[in-house]
Amino acid sequence: MEQGKMGELQPTPRILMGPGPSNVHYRVLRALSTPLVGHLDPQFLTMMDEIGEMLRALFRTKNRLTIPISGTGSAGMEAALVNFLSPGDTVIIGVQGVFGERMCDVAERCGAKVLRLDQEWGKVLEPERVIAALKKHGEAKLCALVHAETSTGVKQPLQEIGEYCKTKDTLFLVDAVTSLGGCEVEVDAWGIDICYTGTQKCLSVPPGLAPITIGAKALEVLHGRKTKVQSWYLDLTMIERYWGEERFYHHTAPISMLYGLREGLRIIFEEGLAARFQNHQVLGDRLKTELENLGFKLFAQDGYRLPMLNAVYLPAGVDDLAVRKRLLQDYHIEVGGGLGKVKGKIWRVGLMGETCKLQNIAYLIDSLKEILGRQ
Amino acid sequence: MEQGKMGELQPTPRILMGPGPSNVHYRVLRALSTPLVGHLDPQFLTMMDEIGEMLRALFRTKNRLTIPISGTGSAGMEAALVNFLSPGDTVIIGVQGVFGERMCDVAERCGAKVLRLDQEWGKVLEPERVIAALKKHGEAKLCALVHAETSTGVKQPLQEIGEYCKTKDTLFLVDAVTSLGGCEVEVDAWGIDICYTGTQKCLSVPPGLAPITIGAKALEVLHGRKTKVQSWYLDLTMIERYWGEERFYHHTAPISMLYGLREGLRIIFEEGLAARFQNHQVLGDRLKTELENLGFKLFAQDGYRLPMLNAVYLPAGVDDLAVRKRLLQDYHIEVGGGLGKVKGKIWRVGLMGETCKLQNIAYLIDSLKEILGRQ
Repeated sequence: MEQGKMGELQPTPRILMGPGPSNVHYRVLRALSTPLVGHLDPQFLTMMDEIGEMLRALFRTKNRLTIPISGTGSAGMEAALVNFLSPGDTVIIGVQGVFGERMCDVAERCGAKVLRLDQEWGKVLEPERVIAALKKHGEAKLCALVHAETSTGVKQPLQEIGEYCKTKDTLFLVDAVTSLGGCEVEVDAWGIDICYTGTQKCLSVPPGLAPITIGAKALEVLHGRKTKVQSWYLDLTMIERYWGEERFYHHTAPISMLYGLREGLRIIFEEGLAARFQNHQVLGDRLKTELENLGFKLFAQDGYRLPMLNAVYLPAGVDDLAVRKRLLQDYHIEVGGGLGKVKGKIWRVGLMGETCKLQNIAYLIDSLKEILGRQ
Repeated sequence: MEQGKMGELQPTPRILMGPGPSNVHYRVLRALSTPLVGHLDPQFLTMMDEIGEMLRALFRTKNRLTIPISGTGSAGMEAALVNFLSPGDTVIIGVQGVFGERMCDVAERCGAKVLRLDQEWGKVLEPERVIAALKKHGEAKLCALVHAETSTGVKQPLQEIGEYCKTKDTLFLVDAVTSLGGCEVEVDAWGIDICYTGTQKCLSVPPGLAPITIGAKALEVLHGRKTKVQSWYLDLTMIERYWGEERFYHHTAPISMLYGLREGLRIIFEEGLAARFQNHQVLGDRLKTELENLGFKLFAQDGYRLPMLNAVYLPAGVDDLAVRKRLLQDYHIEVGGGLGKVKGKIWRVGLMGETCKLQNIAYLIDSLKEILGRQ
């Protein structure tokens, strides 16, 4: 039988310097191979509490409902919208890259009326502009922004907008997929009501889980819904009963992935958040300088550049696909190409979590010198 | 910092004889700890093709669109409904346990008109009754049945119903979460248009993926939709572009879990489907006999009992919770309690995939003798 001849799994390891997944710590990989216990085993329930506690510390929140959604970052995005929106609701969404665009698509599928705040890719949305839109549309149920646009490398200011939303009914939703664990994200202090991330970026855990946190104001909206959440799988009114004291079975938890997340979080808190953010900042600056020295130009607006995701214009004459192919095949380094309208024009070089090491920067720059010198 | 003190992950291993997750082969656990490659790495794309090929062999289908959904079995259920239903569509659903009930809930959230075919728990739906309903409601878009009701241990006959649906427009959807990989499921031969499973049952891969297969007739419905699929994350019109030749990025694939699935499938085809089904049947029969000898009574209708999930009434005087707690704490064996209306009355004893071994039956029976002898 043909299928019986499938060979052993033995991929050539890569240095993952793209926009995610990032490299994974060996302890996380080891944790993934731990034998399973059941999803209602007391040992597992304890583990769920531990994960919740560490996630709260990571999101910098006291929110009880702080849990990993059983899907990748995009499932987190969908959970963040579908639980709070009902048909006819108005939602204000900042669009300055692929992921803001995706939020519009998801919100429209909820039957919401989407007010887009479009901004040129690579630029931030000025907080005053967002606040003006919020004032104009006081009826808006929700305002959603991407903290770290993975398609552009821009870090969006949030705090002023959160402060404004605190005084109104509008919920403030933040996509922190690429930022959480790599730079400051202050859910409670910044007035964020709903925030989600993915495991495969700065947490350096494989893709497959989307930690999310839901504040009291958002919880009130959730519990006051007049119609069922349109997704059964992502319905937080049921999921919270499994993660809460009741332990009511909803769907079978992705046990091995949760083992991995627990270990990834442990590693983060052993390092400490401040030290981790500092490391990302210093090495992100270093990488930017080195790339500029090679003729790359920074894509994102000055003063709002992410440390962990560096978007750069290619130097003139550099063939995007050819050079990335050589980097991958001959040097085993993955960097990301541009998405959407900047495809072929920019690269996205990630320095997330376990990937964020001086040795990776040095090797990438050396490899690029070799390739570009004799392309 | 409190979170820095979280201890090492070292759960006591269990023998997982509940309704899933089942025990996982050491080679699958090992595969999970393989270093990551990117989700667009040529090595990974090859792996996706290999997984697709093995899944087609497992589902016994030629369907091109045969892929793992990035979520647990319930995400597979939602994908199987949400992609094909639009508001106002009629759907006929067999309800003889928790998972039929769940399908109704999911279908209603799609705005579908649900016609329930209710049946007493533990009994099958007679194919004639289903076909009569199909004749009466010729307009039905979809007919959905659970092949192996994990809440009752019943195996639902499918072939006649599939034969009928082949001649009509109605799509035939089958939940094979608990059956696939443990007994015969013939997607093409039986006329099944949509079929999904979960990895944590007879595939003996951890929970977190939901393989699904979509036939030509269903694909036509999908591509002819007039409105977007209400779930972005589960939208097969986009996901098929990533798993197809285009390799168009949708969401980041859960790479480590896919490593595990690939290894689990390899193990299945090394054993061979026929041998695997035979093993489940022989040991399932053995377990039933042994449990009957201890005073348990079989719950499911004679002639329609699943080999891999054995639902049994507790002997008189046996305390459900107390005995299961002792089994888990003192013997490290997990068996499942009853769900819903049979909670406290029945147990569900799984013999799925890697759990399906004589040594597990012997140890469970010995442990029960000890406990019941001196409860």
